[in-house]
Amino acid sequence: MSAPDFVATDRTAVRRLPKRAAYDRPTVEAILDEALVCHVGFVVDGQPYVIPTIHARVGDRLYVHGSAASRMLRTLGAGPPVCVTVTILDGLVLARSAFHHSMNYRSVVVLGRARRVDDPGEKSAALEAIVEHVVPGRSREARGPDERELAATSVLRLDLVEASAKVRTGPPLDDEADMELPVWAGVIPLRLAAGEPVPDPRLLAGLEVPPSVRGYRRPAKR
Amino acid sequence: MSAPDFVATDRTAVRRLPKRAAYDRPTVEAILDEALVCHVGFVVDGQPYVIPTIHARVGDRLYVHGSAASRMLRTLGAGPPVCVTVTILDGLVLARSAFHHSMNYRSVVVLGRARRVDDPGEKSAALEAIVEHVVPGRSREARGPDERELAATSVLRLDLVEASAKVRTGPPLDDEADMELPVWAGVIPLRLAAGEPVPDPRLLAGLEVPPSVRGYRRPAKR
Repeated sequence: MSAPDFVATDRTAVRRLPKRAAYDRPTVEAILDEALVCHVGFVVDGQPYVIPTIHARVGDRLYVHGSAASRMLRTLGAGPPVCVTVTILDGLVLARSAFHHSMNYRSVVVLGRARRVDDPGEKSAALEAIVEHVVPGRSREARGPDERELAATSVLRLDLVEASAKVRTGPPLDDEADMELPVWAGVIPLRLAAGEPVPDPRLLAGLEVPPSVRGYRRPAKR
Repeated sequence: MSAPDFVATDRTAVRRLPKRAAYDRPTVEAILDEALVCHVGFVVDGQPYVIPTIHARVGDRLYVHGSAASRMLRTLGAGPPVCVTVTILDGLVLARSAFHHSMNYRSVVVLGRARRVDDPGEKSAALEAIVEHVVPGRSREARGPDERELAATSVLRLDLVEASAKVRTGPPLDDEADMELPVWAGVIPLRLAAGEPVPDPRLLAGLEVPPSVRGYRRPAKR
């Protein structure tokens, strides 16, 4: 049984342009899954910090990982309030007026408290999910982590309880009075595009580019 | 005379993998200028929030804008500590071991306190810079803001004083013991690509796609 949709709280309700808000779980999950990286916000001595990192979603749990020595991982593992935001840029919206210029995007904000994952099984599964989040199929190709590498890595879990999405799509929305202006208006679509894979300089001879790498794109193939 | 380079403070010094750090102004400025959006971190009642928004740099000042009614703009205008982070994804780094998987990226973290811009001249220039940041040349094509639109928009300024960059480039860095593994390794380059412009459904007949839109790419043409 899948988890229920999110309930807009006083902290996650989208106030500006609420018609762009979404609280249903499939929308939130699809955005989290497509976004390659997230931005993690946390507070140290009253100062907010925002750090980019890779995440992965497994059901109703969000995982991030990092060096066990990292300040961010150590700070977050203690369970302070955290905000994880992902943003996907879909297009530049060019209106006839400067004022109505905008972007087409899909973003998700997750609030909560992270916990360090100590259970070996959950930790291994989370690390595999993070590799799979970036390149589906890759965890079957690469050498998995050994004991030393697992010990050097911290994994944090944030349960998906308080979350909201914000989505803008479509053409510009100009004032009616501007419609006759001789100004080009429309959308420049944007996407994160993958180029031709660049083999490692020390790649063994005869190794082919694997299917996980060939034709790589977001949203990732499953 | 250009401003001096940044000095690593206790708060901006890159601790994890310090060889990836950069504090020189040209590096920081180029990353801020290429990134389309930033993620703004601020704190309300102890809870950090991270919100994506468009920024623009003018000299040693960073500007963001938004609705005068926005909670973020009103909160930040009062001058609490803020963090502005931009991240550009350049590639997926696929190592022979899962542990050494990474990303090539360029990111900048700016700390400080924002101030609301009330001076009409600075406010207009900042709004123009934000349009030009996204689509260079566009501010000469679109209708500029009128008094009502200016009043409905808030602009915030964050002086670039405390900032650092972090950059990863190049191939994966596997353990020597893994070099003989028959695992494909290398980099999948990533870039934010623009598609064919989509004209507004109500575009006046006979309007050509302007040079600012034709062949759009990041970093933006100047």
